[in-house]
Amino acid sequence: MARRSDHTHDEIRAMAVAAARAKIENAGLDKVTLRGIARDIGYSPGTLYNVFDSADELMMRVNAGTIDDLVAALSAAERNGAEPDLRALLAIYRDFVEQNRHRWQAVFDYSLSDPGAAPDWYVAKLNDGLAVVERAVARLPGDFPYPPAVVARVIWAGLHGIFSLGAEGNLKLVTDRDAADLAEALIALIDRAIRH
Amino acid sequence: MARRSDHTHDEIRAMAVAAARAKIENAGLDKVTLRGIARDIGYSPGTLYNVFDSADELMMRVNAGTIDDLVAALSAAERNGAEPDLRALLAIYRDFVEQNRHRWQAVFDYSLSDPGAAPDWYVAKLNDGLAVVERAVARLPGDFPYPPAVVARVIWAGLHGIFSLGAEGNLKLVTDRDAADLAEALIALIDRAIRH
Repeated sequence: MARRSDHTHDEIRAMAVAAARAKIENAGLDKVTLRGIARDIGYSPGTLYNVFDSADELMMRVNAGTIDDLVAALSAAERNGAEPDLRALLAIYRDFVEQNRHRWQAVFDYSLSDPGAAPDWYVAKLNDGLAVVERAVARLPGDFPYPPAVVARVIWAGLHGIFSLGAEGNLKLVTDRDAADLAEALIALIDRAIRH
Repeated sequence: MARRSDHTHDEIRAMAVAAARAKIENAGLDKVTLRGIARDIGYSPGTLYNVFDSADELMMRVNAGTIDDLVAALSAAERNGAEPDLRALLAIYRDFVEQNRHRWQAVFDYSLSDPGAAPDWYVAKLNDGLAVVERAVARLPGDFPYPPAVVARVIWAGLHGIFSLGAEGNLKLVTDRDAADLAEALIALIDRAIRH
């Protein structure tokens, strides 16, 4: 293995994150090992342990990039004061999940060794994405049996269930509808519950 | 390894399913290998390949037992002509998931190599469970923007998302509510959408 020392720590971090992201997109989360990523960028595993606190941190940086990209897509719908409704946000989410299937699944499949230790910047990103959904919920006319923040999280978890079951092939065992159809039904039902 | 030949094929199948179930409950799905299960029951891996079409079939038999147990619990709520509402069914589902966490996760985590090849008896069991939910939906007063069969599947997938995220520790990153709270909110919102 070529040992190089012509990169700063920040550069090595960025290279490792990019390599892990590419590996996930092309081969899935199962194929990512710190050793493999080190080889991909021409450094030793020890170097990666020097620049990341742990393998967890590397994975969280990759997942944070994924969440960043989704939050950016959702936020773009609010540009120039636009007020996207839940259906518009669902379309953005659905397209993102379909175009970034492996990366998106990794956000959920990668359980932290210690979830309580998730860094603040990671949690902040997740909540930024949810805030866009929360604002769309809060704009609905009607009354709220639950606060918009709770409704947004029900939507987030519900969509995750629908798209996960769809991706794994379990959905088609029990219905002719695809994940996009069921997601639309979930959103329409929640919209209707609030307009009650 | 002791090679025994004092069991019928049906007995060996039952022993292997019981051993795999115990392994999942005690150690999680990751620890189940056909080789390990064979060792646990004192037979060679070759014998297991003789009595099961594939490792997939063994896992599906285990999962079918899990679904059987849940469907039995849901169906018991309909005993003597009782008509359980969605909240009552949710309580049964929640208790089952909490008491059988590993087994329940295995139903979802175990992707078939070829989902299109899931045997009819497995698919029938899944749909039996959904039929109980579907009947509870159909009993709601109000009108249905989607057929009860679709609403039942939205509930099923939505609850799966909520309880999966809860089990993995991801839920607590974005809300103080636990999985049971969000599940109750999902059911209440859908109930309200239909009573509209």
